[in-house]
Amino acid sequence: MNILIVYAHPEPQSLNHALKVQMIDHLRAAGHSVQVSDLYEMDWKAVLDRHDMMSKDPSEPFDPSLDSKHAYESGTQSIDIAKEQEKSLWADHVIFQFPLWWFSMPAIMKGWFERVYAYGFAYGYGEHSDTHWGDRYGEGRFSGKRAMLVVTAGGWEPHYSARGVNGPIDDILFPIHHGMLFYPGFQVLPPYVMYRVGKMDEARFQQTCTELFARLDSLETTDPIPYFTQNGGAYDIPSLTLKSDINPQLSGFSAHMDER
Amino acid sequence: MNILIVYAHPEPQSLNHALKVQMIDHLRAAGHSVQVSDLYEMDWKAVLDRHDMMSKDPSEPFDPSLDSKHAYESGTQSIDIAKEQEKSLWADHVIFQFPLWWFSMPAIMKGWFERVYAYGFAYGYGEHSDTHWGDRYGEGRFSGKRAMLVVTAGGWEPHYSARGVNGPIDDILFPIHHGMLFYPGFQVLPPYVMYRVGKMDEARFQQTCTELFARLDSLETTDPIPYFTQNGGAYDIPSLTLKSDINPQLSGFSAHMDER
Repeated sequence: MNILIVYAHPEPQSLNHALKVQMIDHLRAAGHSVQVSDLYEMDWKAVLDRHDMMSKDPSEPFDPSLDSKHAYESGTQSIDIAKEQEKSLWADHVIFQFPLWWFSMPAIMKGWFERVYAYGFAYGYGEHSDTHWGDRYGEGRFSGKRAMLVVTAGGWEPHYSARGVNGPIDDILFPIHHGMLFYPGFQVLPPYVMYRVGKMDEARFQQTCTELFARLDSLETTDPIPYFTQNGGAYDIPSLTLKSDINPQLSGFSAHMDER
Repeated sequence: MNILIVYAHPEPQSLNHALKVQMIDHLRAAGHSVQVSDLYEMDWKAVLDRHDMMSKDPSEPFDPSLDSKHAYESGTQSIDIAKEQEKSLWADHVIFQFPLWWFSMPAIMKGWFERVYAYGFAYGYGEHSDTHWGDRYGEGRFSGKRAMLVVTAGGWEPHYSARGVNGPIDDILFPIHHGMLFYPGFQVLPPYVMYRVGKMDEARFQQTCTELFARLDSLETTDPIPYFTQNGGAYDIPSLTLKSDINPQLSGFSAHMDER
C-alpha cells in the first residue's frame, strides 16, 4: 500500500520524531511505500493567502475560497500545494502525526489543511438535490482511502476521559476526524493517542511502539469510526439534521455515529 | 475599558474586515480604548519554532514548552511575542474575530495562541496539592478579564444545531472557549456567530451590526459561560474528573457547565 505520513513537530530530537522514524521503518519493512510530509522540515507555509494563487490579479480582492477554486481548476496553485494534493491522491492511507497543542493540531498542520484543501479539490462539488447535498461527509475526493491520527498529549489520560476536565479526547478530535477527514471522504480510523508523554521512559517507548505497530499492521482491517454518511438517509436535506428516528436520545458529536 | 481585537482575515475588502471596522468605531465612540492585532496585516509568524527564543543555543534540542518558559522568564522571547503578551495584559476584554475554517480558527490565529501562550505566562504555574492543580481553568494570568469570539461561517445555521451534521457550534468552539480562553483565566462570553455569510446583503449587514453592537455594549454585563472552575470543588484531584454528584447524568463538553 501507499502510505503518506503528514507530520508536524519542530524538533528532530523529540519523541514524535522517534515515533515517526519507527513508523516509517516498520511500514517499509512490511513492504509498503511511504512518503512523508515533514512540515517543519519542509518549512511549510502555514498561512493561506493570495500568494498561493500564482495568477491572482494583485488589484483584485482575494477570496480565500473562490480563488482557491480558480487556481485549482486552472493549474495556477502554488507548487507546494499541488505537490501535497498529489501525495494525498497517491496514498491509500494518510497518517497525521502531531503533538496536541491547545487541544488541536499545530498551526503549521492546520495550514496544510487550509491550503491543500482547495475548493473543487476537497469540497464544493457534487450534485445538490432533494436527496444529495454535495459530495461530502463520507463521499468525496478521498473516498476509498483511510486516515488515522497519531497524537501525543502532555496531560494525563483521565483528564481526557468522558468527564475529565479537558473534555473527552474523542470530542476534542471530532472537528478533525469528522470535519476535516470524513468530510472529503476518508474513512477515519480510531486515533492512537499517547498521554503524559513528558514522562516516557525506554520501557514505555518500547510498549508504545508495539501498540503503534499493531495499529499499522491493521490499517486495512480496523473498523473505521461509524459516522453516518450525509447522503445515506440519516439526515434531512437541506437542513442536514439527523432524522428524528436516528439516535433519537442523542445530540452533539456522538449522535453522528451509527452504533447499531 | 481597554479592548484588544485579535483579528484574522486575509482580505481588506471582506465582510470580516468591514465588521472589524464597525466594531472599532463603535467601541471608540463609546469611549473605550481599542488596540487591534490584525494578524495578516502584521504578517504574524504563525509557526512556533526555536527562532522564537532569541538566546536558544542552536546546538541544543528545542523543547517547545520548556524553551518558551526559559525565554519568557529571561526576557529573551521574540519581540512580537512579548508585544502581544503586553497587549493582552493591557486589555480588560479580548475579542477574537475570525472566519471558521475547517471547524476552527485560521492557522495564523492558532499560531498566535501557540506562540503568545508561553509556559509561565499562560500555563504551568500555581500550587499543586491535594486541592489545587495549578492555576488554570478559571484561574490564571487572565483572571478578571473577559473574552469573546466573533465568528463567520459559510454554512447554514441548522447544520450547526444540536443534531446538525457539522456538530453543534458550542461543541465545535469548546476547545477554544474552554481550552484556550477559560484555561488561562478568561471569563468567556457566549460567541457571536454569523452563518451563511456568503449571502449577506446590505440589510442583513445592518442587522448584523445592530446585534453585534448590542453585544459590545454589554461586554461587562453579559453572563459568561458558566464553566466549573478546576479548583473550586467540582473536580476530583488529581484525576480532574467531575465529582459523581456534579451533573451526574452528563458526559462530554456540556458536563462542564454549571447550569444550577
